[in-house]
Amino acid sequence: MSSLKEYTESEILDRIAQWLPSNAQLICGAGDDTAVVQLCEGADDYLLTSDAVIEGVHFEPMEDLKRVGNKAAGRVLSDIAAMGGAALFLMVDLVIPAERSLEDIEQLYEGLNAQLNPFGAIIVGGDISNSAPFQVHVFAVGKLPKGTAVLRSTAKVKDQLFVTGSLGGSIAAKHLDFSPRIKEGRFLRDWATSMIDLSDGLAKDLRHILSQSDVGAVIQEQAIPVSAGLEEEPLAHALFDGEDYELLFTVKPADVDAFIKAWSEAFVDPAVHIGEIREVSEELLLQKKDGQTCKIEGEGYSHF
Amino acid sequence: MSSLKEYTESEILDRIAQWLPSNAQLICGAGDDTAVVQLCEGADDYLLTSDAVIEGVHFEPMEDLKRVGNKAAGRVLSDIAAMGGAALFLMVDLVIPAERSLEDIEQLYEGLNAQLNPFGAIIVGGDISNSAPFQVHVFAVGKLPKGTAVLRSTAKVKDQLFVTGSLGGSIAAKHLDFSPRIKEGRFLRDWATSMIDLSDGLAKDLRHILSQSDVGAVIQEQAIPVSAGLEEEPLAHALFDGEDYELLFTVKPADVDAFIKAWSEAFVDPAVHIGEIREVSEELLLQKKDGQTCKIEGEGYSHF
Repeated sequence: MSSLKEYTESEILDRIAQWLPSNAQLICGAGDDTAVVQLCEGADDYLLTSDAVIEGVHFEPMEDLKRVGNKAAGRVLSDIAAMGGAALFLMVDLVIPAERSLEDIEQLYEGLNAQLNPFGAIIVGGDISNSAPFQVHVFAVGKLPKGTAVLRSTAKVKDQLFVTGSLGGSIAAKHLDFSPRIKEGRFLRDWATSMIDLSDGLAKDLRHILSQSDVGAVIQEQAIPVSAGLEEEPLAHALFDGEDYELLFTVKPADVDAFIKAWSEAFVDPAVHIGEIREVSEELLLQKKDGQTCKIEGEGYSHF
Repeated sequence: MSSLKEYTESEILDRIAQWLPSNAQLICGAGDDTAVVQLCEGADDYLLTSDAVIEGVHFEPMEDLKRVGNKAAGRVLSDIAAMGGAALFLMVDLVIPAERSLEDIEQLYEGLNAQLNPFGAIIVGGDISNSAPFQVHVFAVGKLPKGTAVLRSTAKVKDQLFVTGSLGGSIAAKHLDFSPRIKEGRFLRDWATSMIDLSDGLAKDLRHILSQSDVGAVIQEQAIPVSAGLEEEPLAHALFDGEDYELLFTVKPADVDAFIKAWSEAFVDPAVHIGEIREVSEELLLQKKDGQTCKIEGEGYSHF
């Protein structure tokens, strides 16, 4: 018997993916930000995703439950954003100790609804169980025009790497208060050759693109947008902290100028150009400010 | 502050339903066996449902995980059956202590896949978190022809009540080993005027039909199909035990003879005629073997 402590979360999910059968309606199964499925004849593909927030793992026991609701809904919307999709319907499985109050649940739903409302998505049901610790499992259905989902597996050598915002230090507040990059994701459907949302840290999430696209990458230390207020080792935080919920994506080199122009007309915050896709499979390099290049060996947050 | 201990699960779910916004694509929201949504122009409506099985609540700590997988997938399929739908895609959120093994997860997925395979449904992704107790949250998407979902709210006075199988004592084995009544549910789309799956007990689940349809009912003690092997108080077990995962449904009085004939041609196990819908809203009566009639006051399993 092999204890789960010997495996990373990614290794366990990869193993599970091997046990899952496929069929003709499954366009993209386990292993990307969401599954992509064909549900009906028509102009759209559909996205399915799920994510959990658990007391003691993803939020502190005394945390404001509106913020927990914001995070729980935001995580699945960030997955949908990373495919280029729009969110439609959600289901919520709540696990809650009986000592909690109805007002606690009301606060949680205030946070969930407030996060979803700007994106036109609604919760349509779910389940409730009496157990501890408190946890919120959210399932979401999204959609996008047929064949337009932006995958992790389609980056090409010389494609240029971008992120949508600053990285690192999310634990201070952003992991509970972020707004998912749904609008940016939909815009990027026309530009990005690959995309992922940053939930486990830049280095670890970029490695998903590299391994699934069978390419390498170099990122420029001086280009990485580090979050304000990170005093110690800001680069390490930007590379390895989880839960930034920004989008990391690649653009064809020939499209870069037009992309930057179109982006700046559509959004106030810049898309930051941080590096380039290279040939050597799964090799992740950092070009430092002093001109030297080194390999990035570590990873971001790992659950097991 | 009002502790959740003061409320039943139904009361909490009713309250949550009040906090949920609606939109034009939502045909039937929280409160039925599944939500019914419009996803695209086309011939079908889509069903969304979620359910959890939690160690210590829905299964014993040392339970065979193949059976736990069978139950976890079976519960959402039973919800889809109760609308008359077919199951398509599932997502699985796993919560598992790090002390568990990869073989444990493999066994769980064997059970999940074995339950889904006969119905052509597949798991397309999910999430895994390191926490205790072990729990499996399953989300499912199903479909059925537009406008044909069989709701809880559409029973009419004089409709006749049926169940698909024997009731009570599920805790001995059936709650882990059942096969959801998907085929029967699809067949019943053409006959049933209302339907629910029996997860919380005949009395409690029938009350959902009564309150949502604003009707009452009488059931015949001698007609109730009691599970074999129930030695003490078999009637109480049949009325109040949870997790039978049979379908409870109503048929128009004029259709009963044709329905029984069609059913007997389609299925080996009989649909059992147990009672009738009456006028007095939410009044649930039991006509006893001695001819006397009494009110059924108790309820089935309640989680909080």
